[in-house]
Amino acid sequence: MTTLKRVLPFAHYLLAEVVTEGDIAIDATVGNGNDTTILAQLVGDSGKVYGFDIQEQAIQNTKRRLENGGLSNRVELFQTSHASIEQLIPNEYFGKIKAAIFNLGYLPGGDKNIVTTPSSTIDAIQQLLAIMAAGGLIILVVYHGHPEGQLERDQLLQYVTALDQKKAHVLQYQFLNQINHAPFIIAIEKQQL
Amino acid sequence: MTTLKRVLPFAHYLLAEVVTEGDIAIDATVGNGNDTTILAQLVGDSGKVYGFDIQEQAIQNTKRRLENGGLSNRVELFQTSHASIEQLIPNEYFGKIKAAIFNLGYLPGGDKNIVTTPSSTIDAIQQLLAIMAAGGLIILVVYHGHPEGQLERDQLLQYVTALDQKKAHVLQYQFLNQINHAPFIIAIEKQQL
Repeated sequence: MTTLKRVLPFAHYLLAEVVTEGDIAIDATVGNGNDTTILAQLVGDSGKVYGFDIQEQAIQNTKRRLENGGLSNRVELFQTSHASIEQLIPNEYFGKIKAAIFNLGYLPGGDKNIVTTPSSTIDAIQQLLAIMAAGGLIILVVYHGHPEGQLERDQLLQYVTALDQKKAHVLQYQFLNQINHAPFIIAIEKQQL
Repeated sequence: MTTLKRVLPFAHYLLAEVVTEGDIAIDATVGNGNDTTILAQLVGDSGKVYGFDIQEQAIQNTKRRLENGGLSNRVELFQTSHASIEQLIPNEYFGKIKAAIFNLGYLPGGDKNIVTTPSSTIDAIQQLLAIMAAGGLIILVVYHGHPEGQLERDQLLQYVTALDQKKAHVLQYQFLNQINHAPFIIAIEKQQL
């Protein structure tokens, strides 16, 4: 039993707090499909999840996982960068997206040279802040053990720290005494304008 | 409606997660008695809260507040430093203390020259980690707008970051884009040894 939720359980707890049946949600980095599956369960049969990843391996792994779980009809996958979110999500859903999650870094079990980059991550966040519902949540799980990850972390922290608190609240949730650059969470809650 | 709990609600949520009827809890800085009251409600008639503050004004404010709430019989107040926790808590309660909360800084509405200090705060944390129950939680609400507060924050972060993760998990919960040095939380969960 543990009172302080670890990083991944906290991310999933937040998703479950904000996403309900019929909602629209985004997995900005589908990876092996773990968060895609969680989102597909939360939005239910009447909701929709849009999943992005630049790697074919990630799209294939996620597709297989969704098929096995009988969840394929709730999810649309795009093999492209999350910097295309605004372009690919149907306009009718603008203002209705309740959550988006990013796992930054490289694909677990994949090519460690293919990593998310601060420019496309920040680009995607800006797009999401424009098109999400008020109260919508962007969750970033920041892996920063690899050298590019430390750069991405620093640029991202600089960007989110400068966000106007009237437009978004930015929470950092981090365990301080873990070895090996344990991942931490940045959660951004869009405010009512 | 807000999904990301603000700092004080998150502190109270954690207290309510870990403290139940019959428990022993500590308010290390009673201040105006707000957290003392919350803890007294959580421990119920069969539990006990020990409250510490070096200022007579804080002890008087808290005493009055507890009397008004009919909670005096659940609380013992000491007008002394929380560095005396180990000495003043009855030995029979060692291993049974479930939570302790600190509000660092100065007494709201009181003398801003009287502030908590990193040495007594760290001393108290060390004592608590020795005498609390496994799974017990220490919550620090870190106010760092005053110059001594920034020193205290830095020394405290250095101390908790170095805590062995086998003995305690240390969470930082902080909003990054708030103006005016908004307070943040450090939560320390004692592990089973």
